[in-house]
Amino acid sequence: MPLALDEAQAAASRGEVPVGAVIVSPAGDVLAVAGNRTRELNDPTAHAEMLAIRAACTALGDERLVDCDLYVTLEPCPMCAAAISFARIRRLYYGANDPKGGGVEHGARIFSQPTCHHVPEVYSGLAEAEAGALLKTFFAARREG
Amino acid sequence: MPLALDEAQAAASRGEVPVGAVIVSPAGDVLAVAGNRTRELNDPTAHAEMLAIRAACTALGDERLVDCDLYVTLEPCPMCAAAISFARIRRLYYGANDPKGGGVEHGARIFSQPTCHHVPEVYSGLAEAEAGALLKTFFAARREG
Repeated sequence: MPLALDEAQAAASRGEVPVGAVIVSPAGDVLAVAGNRTRELNDPTAHAEMLAIRAACTALGDERLVDCDLYVTLEPCPMCAAAISFARIRRLYYGANDPKGGGVEHGARIFSQPTCHHVPEVYSGLAEAEAGALLKTFFAARREG
Repeated sequence: MPLALDEAQAAASRGEVPVGAVIVSPAGDVLAVAGNRTRELNDPTAHAEMLAIRAACTALGDERLVDCDLYVTLEPCPMCAAAISFARIRRLYYGANDPKGGGVEHGARIFSQPTCHHVPEVYSGLAEAEAGALLKTFFAARREG
């Protein structure tokens, strides 16, 4: 999770919403780290989790990340939660809750749908204070700017 | 929709689940056409809609596709439906229903969630027979193969 927080901080310094993600192999190796890059890439799908999943799949040469774990600083949105399911991520660890945009414990609750064919183990609240503080600082600065 | 069906057919010929998507500008110009490439790219996020959205955003140099319309042969999954919302697509036209994997009229029903901040107009059932036939033929051949 410290690596994911570093990526979130780096995203903020690029003017992106500060979210960072890390994917770890079953052996404990870091396969991918990514921060949000929707603005830089002009790509509304370029959330940290999506970029990390795509990079890890490229690294493994596989469209599934069986037994891999994903760490992300914010509750994934429905798009990312569905991608996490498609990628067969084993465990999802996340930081801050996102009542407005989250799709795990809020809104579409992707993993609770009967049409969700792979459900990861979910652990929330990791480094929640740090992850939430990064977001609060970022949005407060934007409101003032 | 004929263009989207062509893309779906092309996807099938590459061994991919036959789904095709097209994005059209407010002026009626085709901004992007794409077929499913999850296997070829080793990318579980490489659904036709996602690739089309990313290509159209690149073409416009914008992370939003305001007033653009998306045509796709199959009901979008929750990942794609959320991406369609993020991209601010104006109208979504789709062909076959997908009770097992869809996220518009089934499962997560992304656009019906109070946390969905942009809801496109949705028109379903366009070229439903052709789109559905492509999928049925593809999966029947795989079961026999």
